[in-house]
Amino acid sequence: MKIMRFIVDRKEKTGLIEDSNIIELSCSVVEALNAINLDKFKKNSYYTLENIKIKAPVSPSKVVCVGLNYQDHAAELNMDIPDEPILFLKPPSAVIGHQEPIIYPGSSNQVDYEAEMGIIISKKAKNIKENNAREFIGGYTILNDVTARDLQKKDGQWTRAKSFDTFAPIGPVIETQMNPDNQNIFLKLNGEIKQDSNTKNMIFEVEELLEFISHIMTLNPGDIIATGTPPGVGSLQPGDRIETGVEDIGVLKNQIIRP
Amino acid sequence: MKIMRFIVDRKEKTGLIEDSNIIELSCSVVEALNAINLDKFKKNSYYTLENIKIKAPVSPSKVVCVGLNYQDHAAELNMDIPDEPILFLKPPSAVIGHQEPIIYPGSSNQVDYEAEMGIIISKKAKNIKENNAREFIGGYTILNDVTARDLQKKDGQWTRAKSFDTFAPIGPVIETQMNPDNQNIFLKLNGEIKQDSNTKNMIFEVEELLEFISHIMTLNPGDIIATGTPPGVGSLQPGDRIETGVEDIGVLKNQIIRP
Repeated sequence: MKIMRFIVDRKEKTGLIEDSNIIELSCSVVEALNAINLDKFKKNSYYTLENIKIKAPVSPSKVVCVGLNYQDHAAELNMDIPDEPILFLKPPSAVIGHQEPIIYPGSSNQVDYEAEMGIIISKKAKNIKENNAREFIGGYTILNDVTARDLQKKDGQWTRAKSFDTFAPIGPVIETQMNPDNQNIFLKLNGEIKQDSNTKNMIFEVEELLEFISHIMTLNPGDIIATGTPPGVGSLQPGDRIETGVEDIGVLKNQIIRP
Repeated sequence: MKIMRFIVDRKEKTGLIEDSNIIELSCSVVEALNAINLDKFKKNSYYTLENIKIKAPVSPSKVVCVGLNYQDHAAELNMDIPDEPILFLKPPSAVIGHQEPIIYPGSSNQVDYEAEMGIIISKKAKNIKENNAREFIGGYTILNDVTARDLQKKDGQWTRAKSFDTFAPIGPVIETQMNPDNQNIFLKLNGEIKQDSNTKNMIFEVEELLEFISHIMTLNPGDIIATGTPPGVGSLQPGDRIETGVEDIGVLKNQIIRP
C-alpha cells in the first residue's frame, strides 16, 4: 500500500493510493502505518494527483543517516569500509517533499545528490533486536541526501554539509509492503541515469541498522532512517532536475534553484 | 528572570522563579520567553523547589552543537582551531533534565562530561545577522554535552558518540537577562572542580554562532545551540555525580548510572 500526505485548499490530509486515485483517510500517516485494516479510516473523498500538492509523508523528530553503506560508494570517496555503521543526523528543518525546490546555498560550490531508500519508523523503538525489527517499520520512502561536498571535506564533520534547509527531500509516498532487501534504486539528473544499483548491495541491512541505531537512540513514530547511497554521486547546478527512484515506491522529483 | 518547566501531580507546568518561590505561569516556556511582561500569565499558584520535579526547560526540534569553541579544549584533544564553527547535532531523544540520570551505554568504555552554555531560540530564525541576533534569543541554559570519547575517536564522525539517550542534560532553568559573553562556567565531578573557565574565552561568540547556523538551517522556537566546552574534559564512572554550572543560570545536577 502507498500512504501519503497532501494539501488541498491549504489543508493537510492523509491519503491512500488505489488505482491511481487518492482516497482520503481520517487518520494521521503514523496511525495509518499502524492500522491493521484501513477500511474504517477511508473517507468518501477521492482526489487525483493532478489536483493536489504532495507533502513530505512524515514530519520526523529526527532523520538518522547511515554513511558509506554501499561498498562501491565508499571506494569512490576514497573512504574505508566501516565495520559498524557510520551515523550522522540531518535536522528536521531540512525536510522537503516531492516537487519542492532544493535551494543551492551561497556558501557552497559543490552540491551533490545521493539517492537513498528511507525507513519509516511506526512504533517507538529502543534496544530492539534484528529479528523483530520489522515490527517497528511502517514502510519505506525515497530520500535524497543532498550534500555540500566541499563543506563536507572542509569540516571533516559532515553535519553542516548535510543540514541546509531543503537538503532532505523525501517522498513522494510510503510503501508499506515491499521487500527492502532487493529494490532497484536509481537517480536521474536531467533525464540521464547517474546512480543505478540495488539495495541488496547495502553493507548493513535494514534489520541490522535498526538494532544498531535503536541501541543508541530511541526512535519515534515518523522518524526516518536513510540507508546510504550507491555509487555514482555527482554534482548539481541550479536549474537541474533530479528524479530519485526506488523500484516499488516510485519516483521523487525535485529541481535545484538559487535562493 | 528564570523560566522553567516542572511537574506536579504528573502535570507539566511553566514556572517563573521569584525569591526562591516558583510562580506558575499560564503559558508555555516559549510564550514566556517572547512575552514583554509576564504579569498577565502569573497564576495564583506558588510552589517551592522541594515539592516539584524539574523538567528539561524546552523540548527542542534540534540541538545544534559547536565543537572546539574554546582554544584550550581544541589543544587538549590535539585538534586544530577551526576558522569556522564545526557543527554537529544531538537528537531530541537525548535530552533529559536536572536530576535525571545519565545512562552509561554498554557499547562505550569512556564516557566524558563537557560543560557548556546553551542558547535558547525564541523566534523562528533564518539568515539572521549578528547585529540583530539577540532578538531571536529567549535566554540561556546549561548543557552537558556527554560524549562517548572512544566511539567519537573510532567513528571519526561524532554523531553516535554524542547521541545516546540521556546524553544531553539541560537546565535547570532558562535565564533570560544575563550577559552571555562573560559568564564563569564550571563543572564539578563528585564535588571536585574539573572545568573552570569563562564564556569570554569562546572563539566564536553567541551572535556569530547565530548568524552562521541560521544561514544553514532554520532555527525554531525552543531549539538549543550548545556553545562548546572549555578545557578540563574527563571521564565519568557509574555512580558519579556531576554539577555543571554557569554563573548567572545556576547548577545542573545529574548522576551517572548503569542501565
